[in-house]
Amino acid sequence: MSRNKRYLALCGGVGGAKLVLGLSRVLESSQLTVVVNTGDDFEHLGLLICPDLDTVTYTLAGLVHPEQGWGRAGESWNALAEVERLGSESWFRLGDRDIGLHLVRRTLLEQGMALSETTAYITGQLGIGPAIVPMSDAEIRTEVETDQGCLAFQHYFVRERCEPAVRGIRFAGARAAKPSSGFLQALRDPGLAGVIICPSNPFLSIDPILSLPGVRTALSELDAPVVAVSPLVAGQAIKGPTAKIMQELRLPVSVAAIAGHYTGLLDGLIVDHRDRVAAAEIEPCLPLHHCETIMTDLASKIGLAEQAIGFLTTLAGGS
Amino acid sequence: MSRNKRYLALCGGVGGAKLVLGLSRVLESSQLTVVVNTGDDFEHLGLLICPDLDTVTYTLAGLVHPEQGWGRAGESWNALAEVERLGSESWFRLGDRDIGLHLVRRTLLEQGMALSETTAYITGQLGIGPAIVPMSDAEIRTEVETDQGCLAFQHYFVRERCEPAVRGIRFAGARAAKPSSGFLQALRDPGLAGVIICPSNPFLSIDPILSLPGVRTALSELDAPVVAVSPLVAGQAIKGPTAKIMQELRLPVSVAAIAGHYTGLLDGLIVDHRDRVAAAEIEPCLPLHHCETIMTDLASKIGLAEQAIGFLTTLAGGS
Repeated sequence: MSRNKRYLALCGGVGGAKLVLGLSRVLESSQLTVVVNTGDDFEHLGLLICPDLDTVTYTLAGLVHPEQGWGRAGESWNALAEVERLGSESWFRLGDRDIGLHLVRRTLLEQGMALSETTAYITGQLGIGPAIVPMSDAEIRTEVETDQGCLAFQHYFVRERCEPAVRGIRFAGARAAKPSSGFLQALRDPGLAGVIICPSNPFLSIDPILSLPGVRTALSELDAPVVAVSPLVAGQAIKGPTAKIMQELRLPVSVAAIAGHYTGLLDGLIVDHRDRVAAAEIEPCLPLHHCETIMTDLASKIGLAEQAIGFLTTLAGGS
Repeated sequence: MSRNKRYLALCGGVGGAKLVLGLSRVLESSQLTVVVNTGDDFEHLGLLICPDLDTVTYTLAGLVHPEQGWGRAGESWNALAEVERLGSESWFRLGDRDIGLHLVRRTLLEQGMALSETTAYITGQLGIGPAIVPMSDAEIRTEVETDQGCLAFQHYFVRERCEPAVRGIRFAGARAAKPSSGFLQALRDPGLAGVIICPSNPFLSIDPILSLPGVRTALSELDAPVVAVSPLVAGQAIKGPTAKIMQELRLPVSVAAIAGHYTGLLDGLIVDHRDRVAAAEIEPCLPLHHCETIMTDLASKIGLAEQAIGFLTTLAGGS
């Protein structure tokens, strides 16, 4: 694979991070830019929590909790136990090692660094090769309109465990925000050979990225092909509330609805082989690529990454 | 002992906290106010570190590391290990449990609470009875002039391990600061039966308190007696750099020099029985009380507290 071909991955947390790990093993570091959702970010206990950025960072650094897919392996919880003892909010589970990273990020932000710069610094210290780029340096906060009122994202996602029914989703601050310079640079890169929308939640993790001014247009006007990996497998989400939200938003829980959601953006869709029959109706409109999309171990992450790069190469008419 | 008699203790960190623990067992909670040095406080990793306040708090809550005398028992250090891994400053040893308290304090300060209020909240949550009061809600920062230049207190004390020779000590911000309202209230309390200057470092821990506008005058004009417990035992400091600093400031390392340092403030001085001969020259000028002042266990802390209250009672001419 030519080293001059560069790829852009758009991703959220756990599911996206798994594919990004695969991509990082298939591509050279200089070939991969990962743009990460920051709509889930929030201020908590005086720290800036960036769940998706940190999940991707910990995954690529080999530090992630292997079963959970987020947070740290070998984590301890003593700081949070004290926070609880002192009567403060402990519903958001921050481990001690994770807090160490948050203290460093806070210090760097207070020194005047942008979130892109703190991320570059931290991933550099951890020896991560590919560029991990927040979608924006501006504050964008996902808000979920539910049957219990409008909830800040983490209140919906963690505190209320996604139980309220979703009526709508907003990305406060997005309209006035700019994509980060690293994101813009990747979109304008003449060597860009393809864009991969990771199997993250389209509504909560990918839409914030797409909501930034100019991003949809830039993606649809690219010479390079754009593909998404469907986050549904056998009509279900592997993890998280994708299927539940689709029902609440009155969408069929189907690959077709995922394709419909990304209307105008995609040159191809990667669909789990279990959904071959269900996806047949899309095929006349959009090139599909069927393969195994469940990523249980490193080999399956690398396997899906290879499938995605191969599909992009086919779509570009190359080899 | 009459419950109407109230006492004020002035203290710094480890040594002072030990006597305060003794006092808390000898007096009712409502009888004791502890005013604590905040000149050692500093901002670090985006947190407000208050070493003396926290040492007193942890000691009275029964949470302090028993051998060290500061920090937490059963502490873990995972957050700091990450801070170090990420290349940030780790010379100041913040444990995970300790960080939990710091996150809570930071959150409360950001909500607009004064340091007095955060301290009252935290000590209340930990079930501490006596009032723990920072000397001031203003930012006062001890600076140490040394042969290696002027150092912020913790840089001198922790990072440089008190190795530079001290030429002078300043309390930046003190002149413009006010004593905290809890401190002023204790000084003006008609029921005040005595003041105890704990066996803390006179130059680094007690002088910041005395440097606040009006405090020296208020203490010297009190009807109630003021006593200090000499921090020297057999001509040496139990812990910390008191003796070294006295030499560097060209003072004899003696009880007489301690008495001289507190000139005009004291109605009596408690001196370790090992210093009976050395202290004889003071006796004509200042009432002395000789006893065991080394506090190794709870019984000896209670013992010294009883001696101090007894001495104050004698000085007041009561019983």
